[in-house]
Amino acid sequence: MNTQSHPFDLAIRLVPEGEGCSRGATSPAYANMVGPFGGITCAVLLQAVLMHPQRQGDPIALTVNFAAPISDGAFRIEARPVRTNRSTQHWVVQLTQEDGVAATATATLAMRRDTWSVPEAMPPSEIPPASALAPMPHTGAPAWVRSYDLRFAEGGLPSAFDGREQPHSRSEVWVRDEPPRPLDFLSLAAICDSFFPRIFLRRRTFAPVGTVSLTSFFHADAQMLARQSDRHVLGAARAMNYRNGFFDQSAEIWSDDGQLLASSHQIAYFRD
Amino acid sequence: MNTQSHPFDLAIRLVPEGEGCSRGATSPAYANMVGPFGGITCAVLLQAVLMHPQRQGDPIALTVNFAAPISDGAFRIEARPVRTNRSTQHWVVQLTQEDGVAATATATLAMRRDTWSVPEAMPPSEIPPASALAPMPHTGAPAWVRSYDLRFAEGGLPSAFDGREQPHSRSEVWVRDEPPRPLDFLSLAAICDSFFPRIFLRRRTFAPVGTVSLTSFFHADAQMLARQSDRHVLGAARAMNYRNGFFDQSAEIWSDDGQLLASSHQIAYFRD
Repeated sequence: MNTQSHPFDLAIRLVPEGEGCSRGATSPAYANMVGPFGGITCAVLLQAVLMHPQRQGDPIALTVNFAAPISDGAFRIEARPVRTNRSTQHWVVQLTQEDGVAATATATLAMRRDTWSVPEAMPPSEIPPASALAPMPHTGAPAWVRSYDLRFAEGGLPSAFDGREQPHSRSEVWVRDEPPRPLDFLSLAAICDSFFPRIFLRRRTFAPVGTVSLTSFFHADAQMLARQSDRHVLGAARAMNYRNGFFDQSAEIWSDDGQLLASSHQIAYFRD
Repeated sequence: MNTQSHPFDLAIRLVPEGEGCSRGATSPAYANMVGPFGGITCAVLLQAVLMHPQRQGDPIALTVNFAAPISDGAFRIEARPVRTNRSTQHWVVQLTQEDGVAATATATLAMRRDTWSVPEAMPPSEIPPASALAPMPHTGAPAWVRSYDLRFAEGGLPSAFDGREQPHSRSEVWVRDEPPRPLDFLSLAAICDSFFPRIFLRRRTFAPVGTVSLTSFFHADAQMLARQSDRHVLGAARAMNYRNGFFDQSAEIWSDDGQLLASSHQIAYFRD
């Protein structure tokens, strides 16, 4: 299934150099307007953990701090297991380029046990199936957008950045890799950052923005992701507050049968 | 105002040892059932950053990973600035005890500029003022609960752990330090973890639980916190999903005039 020849797998390919270090490079297929799409950086940082020989368990939490712009080209990742318990394992990860640290991350892996399990939040209701919605046109979009099939039920990018402030920034959108690829923790980590900056929807002005820190929680296990396979997942995103150069946004990722796969929270900077 | 003699300030007191390292110790006033209250650990990790001579700016984001139980007694914190930009600064922090790393953290500081600012989420409505609600009784509660004045408008701890599963786990609660202490980033970081585990409210059974990873975003600047002073802040908390040993919870902290001060998201383990 994961043929390693999918553009996503090529983009997160790391060459181990021993002692938890590896080398990778940015990929044109996931380029953003400047540097790489944040989601692919999340995925490659997680990949450094998951391919580490001391890895134990599957991801529960991932925090990525975007410390500096990542330049197109080579990077080095160091992943270090700082504590391994019976059922959880804690990692500290760092991505460096020639001019220093460009991203830091922490990850927690866990081995899950069968327990009492119930949902509390419910998936968005009355959303048409992905098959009933048109894919967002890729014309003029940065490369990474073309690496996704995005079908908005609500809250797509505004057709014009006309400065007409909107009352909210909510989006509901079906997402899958383009071309299709079976969902795993790596692609899910990237999808967690696939929601356009909420300030674009709310303010309808175009200005420099960038994620500062992003945390994703993985509610699904590997079996749930395997069941989802390469079908669209449903994302729901919103913001809570925009204030003096920073705003937050949160998103949930749902399977197409209404299970919560991941939740994600980030804070981003913006310029006026 | 911050007299350094408040139990909170004593609990987060660190003795610098040079090169970003410092020593501290757990405090009986913030003891939980086993080890310290998670919120006081968040505060002391942030304190290690804020007292560092290279600190630049105020907190925007803080992630704390609880890697292992913290034993009562001494600990050592190392705070390292990994990247300083014009307006943001990224930190990696680690708390160790004799048997290894017990917590890791990343923090982002920033210098804010005046920009377009609007709220999107609204504070809970129709909540009685703190003065109209009774403080939660401290009888039988762990020490840290006695270090807060908690006034629940909704969703207090169940009066009995009778296993009668509830439809939701929402709480709305006025919170302040006990005795009162003017709010700052450190006490706000602790308050972000002051919400009882949602599983207690939802499931009404008592079982071992513990935060695995907690991320807080600071929407307020120092002036907003100073204006709030030592009056109660309003917290609102809920969970989204409980599944195979882990559940999440999110909370917002509002000033008493309805401004979002912080938002916080955590994932916790539970046993059946």
